[in-house]
Amino acid sequence: MELNIALLAGDGIGPEVIDQAVKVCDAIATKYNHKINWTAALTGAAAIDAVGDPYPDETHEICVKADAVLFGAIGHPRFDNDPSAKVRPEQGLLKMRQKLGLFANVRPTFTFPSLIDKSPLKRERIEGTNLVFLRELTSGIYFGKRGREDDGNTAYDTCTYTRAEVTRLAKKGFETAMARSKKLCCVDKANVLESSRLWRETVQSMEKEYPEVEVSYEFVDAVAMRLVQWPNSYDVLITENLFGDILTDEASVISGSMGLMPSASLGEKNSLFEPIHGSYPQATGKDIANPLATVLSAAMMFETAFGLTDEAEAIRVVVNKSLDAGIVTEDLAEGKKAYKTSEIGDWLVANI
Amino acid sequence: MELNIALLAGDGIGPEVIDQAVKVCDAIATKYNHKINWTAALTGAAAIDAVGDPYPDETHEICVKADAVLFGAIGHPRFDNDPSAKVRPEQGLLKMRQKLGLFANVRPTFTFPSLIDKSPLKRERIEGTNLVFLRELTSGIYFGKRGREDDGNTAYDTCTYTRAEVTRLAKKGFETAMARSKKLCCVDKANVLESSRLWRETVQSMEKEYPEVEVSYEFVDAVAMRLVQWPNSYDVLITENLFGDILTDEASVISGSMGLMPSASLGEKNSLFEPIHGSYPQATGKDIANPLATVLSAAMMFETAFGLTDEAEAIRVVVNKSLDAGIVTEDLAEGKKAYKTSEIGDWLVANI
Ligand SMILES: CC(C)[C@H](C(=O)O)[C@@H](O)C(=O)O
Ligand SMILES: CC(C)[C@H](C(=O)O)[C@@H](O)C(=O)O
Repeated sequence: MELNIALLAGDGIGPEVIDQAVKVCDAIATKYNHKINWTAALTGAAAIDAVGDPYPDETHEICVKADAVLFGAIGHPRFDNDPSAKVRPEQGLLKMRQKLGLFANVRPTFTFPSLIDKSPLKRERIEGTNLVFLRELTSGIYFGKRGREDDGNTAYDTCTYTRAEVTRLAKKGFETAMARSKKLCCVDKANVLESSRLWRETVQSMEKEYPEVEVSYEFVDAVAMRLVQWPNSYDVLITENLFGDILTDEASVISGSMGLMPSASLGEKNSLFEPIHGSYPQATGKDIANPLATVLSAAMMFETAFGLTDEAEAIRVVVNKSLDAGIVTEDLAEGKKAYKTSEIGDWLVANI
Repeated sequence: MELNIALLAGDGIGPEVIDQAVKVCDAIATKYNHKINWTAALTGAAAIDAVGDPYPDETHEICVKADAVLFGAIGHPRFDNDPSAKVRPEQGLLKMRQKLGLFANVRPTFTFPSLIDKSPLKRERIEGTNLVFLRELTSGIYFGKRGREDDGNTAYDTCTYTRAEVTRLAKKGFETAMARSKKLCCVDKANVLESSRLWRETVQSMEKEYPEVEVSYEFVDAVAMRLVQWPNSYDVLITENLFGDILTDEASVISGSMGLMPSASLGEKNSLFEPIHGSYPQATGKDIANPLATVLSAAMMFETAFGLTDEAEAIRVVVNKSLDAGIVTEDLAEGKKAYKTSEIGDWLVANI
């Protein structure tokens, strides 16, 4: 099979972790007789520096034409403490999500047997955790009208949702639940927000189309709590953009390292795969960042974008093997030998 | 001293836990020679049933006249899954917060030595945790314009903040930091939201008035993560209304039981004290709910509303004593004897 993949390394540790994923993908392609055509493109602070736009039109063209996008990370501290910056790397990410129509962000959280004791949570609380968030990614307060009034002394943001947007995401949630344990949790703040009430009533009205799925409705504050208390009581969770941002980051802690969790962002036509961690500026250029979240995102890409499940499984198997063998970066080394980012990539390739 | 306290038991387990706090306050008053005048008033579902309004004007009058308000819980499941309900218990809570001008919700999170192993988090991660959130409580998306358009198929909520609102809350944050370890963390989503950028720039502009305070700025998603990873790296945190709702509930898990954490809601003139847990409908009327969060809220009331620090400390001491002695409700009993809500109250009174 010929696979056309757009490669967006982005900022910070993005390029380093992307390099390892590329090596792994190429090794898998060789083994399974595929041909990958990589097309690199600029995003984020790197793109601002080069052409003044964090998601240039050329990059968009490349993403649209590709069969899938593999993405590293975006963000640079230079912009964070400058509330008046006109162009920000994050705008590129949001523009990319919107222009590619990536409305469903799929973020699994699971534990690795060999790492379970690295979690800040107790073993008995997290054993067996295997949940997946479907976060709405192209609407809500991220994309609503915002601005200033009153000489800049009043600021506002608007959270808007349409029934069609909720339906589209919820459908993916019901389908995911059907393919798993048939349990779906809709996370909202329907006791306060009108947009949440629309979410709840829309999901309620869809229940009859999926009579086998057991649906629960929980408030976001309660979920923020129960995620830490009993993460393995959840299976599939659907939620709006901002709640998803907060809760999926919280959930990522369960696995013991942010450097492990992959994600997929799916649209009607395009799909993008990226680690959930950020650009980790402090580690940039040091060859110490954990590349596994990106490598596992590539596995999601093989499976979801190309339907190549054996290839995806082969990546997961070799990743688990590396963890079991203690071939880990410093975030997981705990006093033992820490391998470099590039060494992890090399080890994975050698063992594929 | 004569203390005039409005007593709002509310819904669910509210009345049961409030009863214990009243017993404890009365015992403290006797011991320290105070006179408490309690004035009970209706709120929440109870008030809807009685007079059709979750925060009736009469209740407001009583709260305004009182020196402090002691509050139980609000909420009833009958309203939660009915997105079309016109009057909701929670509206009473929001109306109360707004009409009393309770702009700063103070929510401490700390560990109890005798309970540290009940936390879902590992001991070494939470030992020494003693942080306090100041959540803005009378603005933001809770109070912005909301509604439907397009035949009900589009719903929106607006998050608005003014510089004055941010300044008022941030001032309390800086002052709290000055009285503690001089570390302040401002939690926002300034990489996306305009209201967060106003928060950040306002807090930044106040830094020079408090040169001794070391201020950090973190994104809400990162805090949701780090709160579970390294809670004891935080001290004073300030944030807007919705982020505060989510993060303080998440943080409450650290202590091992929601039934333990108190809170104070402060305005220019009025103040209200309440447990952070909700109305816990499943436990209602069973005499099993943990009353300690409410009892500890009463301690905050003695200290904050009346400046009676010895009285507050006496309550904290007897609460710790009860925990050390294993006089606990079923949420903390772990197979050992579980005491009733009312038995906890009696034990505390007997030991004051
Ligand atoms: C960088 C930021 C804009 C982004 C978001 O909030 O969506 C990130 O936190 C994420 O979750 O991908
Ligand atoms: C009941 C609800 C409206 C309320 C809130 O969201 O503020 C509660 O969760 C709280 O934190 O006091």
